[in-house]
Amino acid sequence: MASTHLVFSSRDEHRAWLAQQAALPAGFRVGTTRFEFVPREAPKPAKMTITLIALHQPTRDFAAVFTKNALPGAPVIIGRRRLAEPKLGAIVVNNKISNVCAPNGVETAERICSAAASSLGLQPHEILPSSTGVIGWSLPAEAIVAALPAAAASLTASSILPAAEGIVTTDLYPKIRRAQVGAGSIVGIAKGAGMIEPNLATMLVYILTDLAVPRDTLRAMLGRAIDQSFNTISIDSDTSTSDTVAVLSSSLVPCSDHAAFEAALTQVCRDLSEDVVRNGEGVRHVIRVQVTRAPSRETARALGKAIVNAPLFKCAVAGNDANVGRLVQAIGKYAGALSTPLDLSKLRLRMGGLDIYGDGVFRLDPTKELALAAHLKNAELYASAAPKDGVFTPPISHPAHERCVEIEVDLGTGSGECTVIGGDLTHEYVSENADYRS
Amino acid sequence: MASTHLVFSSRDEHRAWLAQQAALPAGFRVGTTRFEFVPREAPKPAKMTITLIALHQPTRDFAAVFTKNALPGAPVIIGRRRLAEPKLGAIVVNNKISNVCAPNGVETAERICSAAASSLGLQPHEILPSSTGVIGWSLPAEAIVAALPAAAASLTASSILPAAEGIVTTDLYPKIRRAQVGAGSIVGIAKGAGMIEPNLATMLVYILTDLAVPRDTLRAMLGRAIDQSFNTISIDSDTSTSDTVAVLSSSLVPCSDHAAFEAALTQVCRDLSEDVVRNGEGVRHVIRVQVTRAPSRETARALGKAIVNAPLFKCAVAGNDANVGRLVQAIGKYAGALSTPLDLSKLRLRMGGLDIYGDGVFRLDPTKELALAAHLKNAELYASAAPKDGVFTPPISHPAHERCVEIEVDLGTGSGECTVIGGDLTHEYVSENADYRS
Repeated sequence: MASTHLVFSSRDEHRAWLAQQAALPAGFRVGTTRFEFVPREAPKPAKMTITLIALHQPTRDFAAVFTKNALPGAPVIIGRRRLAEPKLGAIVVNNKISNVCAPNGVETAERICSAAASSLGLQPHEILPSSTGVIGWSLPAEAIVAALPAAAASLTASSILPAAEGIVTTDLYPKIRRAQVGAGSIVGIAKGAGMIEPNLATMLVYILTDLAVPRDTLRAMLGRAIDQSFNTISIDSDTSTSDTVAVLSSSLVPCSDHAAFEAALTQVCRDLSEDVVRNGEGVRHVIRVQVTRAPSRETARALGKAIVNAPLFKCAVAGNDANVGRLVQAIGKYAGALSTPLDLSKLRLRMGGLDIYGDGVFRLDPTKELALAAHLKNAELYASAAPKDGVFTPPISHPAHERCVEIEVDLGTGSGECTVIGGDLTHEYVSENADYRS
Repeated sequence: MASTHLVFSSRDEHRAWLAQQAALPAGFRVGTTRFEFVPREAPKPAKMTITLIALHQPTRDFAAVFTKNALPGAPVIIGRRRLAEPKLGAIVVNNKISNVCAPNGVETAERICSAAASSLGLQPHEILPSSTGVIGWSLPAEAIVAALPAAAASLTASSILPAAEGIVTTDLYPKIRRAQVGAGSIVGIAKGAGMIEPNLATMLVYILTDLAVPRDTLRAMLGRAIDQSFNTISIDSDTSTSDTVAVLSSSLVPCSDHAAFEAALTQVCRDLSEDVVRNGEGVRHVIRVQVTRAPSRETARALGKAIVNAPLFKCAVAGNDANVGRLVQAIGKYAGALSTPLDLSKLRLRMGGLDIYGDGVFRLDPTKELALAAHLKNAELYASAAPKDGVFTPPISHPAHERCVEIEVDLGTGSGECTVIGGDLTHEYVSENADYRS
């Protein structure tokens, strides 16, 4: 899961790179607007951004995958219905409130679709709604409807960056990835920094392309690409109620090489999924676990997830503490909880390229401990700063490098393999999620 | 899972109560000794306590249950063998290093058993070894063997308190619970504050009784008691490699009422398991989830575990933030990941006695939000203090009260129920596990 480019020395350098990535494929426009309101459930003002992603012409060729959370948000409920519609013309996204299990949430979302359709000259069922933010609050329908004309008036065909910025909540910086396929391109944006362990889908991700790929082919490709990307990451093991990945094709550029398109789509998904982890809430180390020679890919993925989700190991990584005992604990916990035993007799572990476990025993000494600590330190995205007013804030506005804590798990019993990406568990994560309401 | 007594205003008051609980049943002695050593894998001195729990006469009537972690420690491997031995005469426990996957770990543990047997006039196979602490390091066998005579010389029949203190690692205070059954008694001690989500067993727990209950009956009772106690708690979802619960009977007091004995044993297990959570690493709120009208007890327990293990909800509780959206997210995540769907159409939720969700929608308003925040504040065990030298330390040396964050989950679809107890996710937890090696 190599990223194409991910080393920046400053926010400005990152912004300049994002601007290059941001050119919209032919046939799309984006626009945003921002306003202040008071949520019904909490008497404190809040700010919301409305983002519109619109096609010049509604398209038959679109695909979307949604969360497997059993209590999905109203936009997900509607989005599943939209998959059966003949055409899609636009996406309307709000941040701040996610419209999950809110009284009359579906009706509110449909009302917003109708208003967006009016502003864009479309039918309501040609609009895909998306919401992200606090779960439990109700959308300010009046304010959103009132804001939509301004969002529509701001539509431009130049850059996706306003949309990448418009959809974020706790993200520290926008995330854009692109791929070129012949004369056409694929451009994707993602938001998501917490409540991230996608289950067949993830967060909010929008991928636009001008390459013409028929709906059924596109949907099959998206399913496979997600399996190779978003479904192999976890920030905090929590599966959001609003996860959505949508691909829209304007079909303006003929696509003769479907294999090249799928490879490019998969790469964009992989790049965005690593972006999401690297910008995960409080993440100070990205942890990459390569599980090989497992009985199956599913086992490899589940074991990798068990490692990147083990709180004690995550805390040790946060502290640059090579507590490999907790790594072994996580593996044994996963294997011990299975109804069918997993053979660990051939288990071999490497961390930072160093052998740390094999033949049933640890291979540790003080020199290796120092080398492992140096590997952890080298993968740190930023040094933790003292809290201000009791709150730890990541002092970061761009991805500083692409180094990971590298863990290799060789089960020696099969041919299944999977690389899973996750993050550590830090004071910054606790501050983000305990010290104030996100 | 009501506790018998759990409200203390000071460490001294708690100590006085512990001293009352600590009287040993007839037929037992405990002794400890403490020494300094340098671990082979880390060139920094460390301290270790050796604890001996000895019977006056080896007993046939003992029971033990061990971790389901698939990479168990050497003492667990030996302990499983000991279950087939005709008699057990003593337990030898060390803290600081857990002897898991260490080179020659089993041989080292057997050597310690032999030395302990020599000091106590027993056979090596009559000794149950236990170790807890860092995973990955090797036991200092020479130093332990050299220390055993001092531990044996300190054996006294008065109080179990030295053992309750001797076995701890990151625990903030010792944990002792007792029950009286006719002329006999049951006294249990526990250590454990992190890496706690028992899977059919947990942590280190030793329960002593003078009541005569035959081995097979005792083992069946212990299995049922654990199902009602340790298997319903989770501090951080991590299953230790060393979990052990052992019950030893000196059989000196006839026991005519087995039902009363089992009820008392179960109560001691429940009390100790709640003690373990209330003293969990960084735990500032104990969260009690009562799941009712579930399709089965197993589903009720798994759903309760999913809630107390959801990082985002745990962080919100830590911040006294009644973010009930994250509670719903955790329930939906659990239900959505099942292969067989779980019916959530009749789901009703209460928190702190207040209705917060029913008929598919939230029931929230600003007044209720304030009441929920007050409920969280009231369940706080201590106020988080600013970090010293970057490390958050719980300012607590005794359990301050027995209040919990009370969550009721009514699935409305069956008769299965289970109460699960867990804790929040705090800066103190991260400090404990990231800011220095435990």
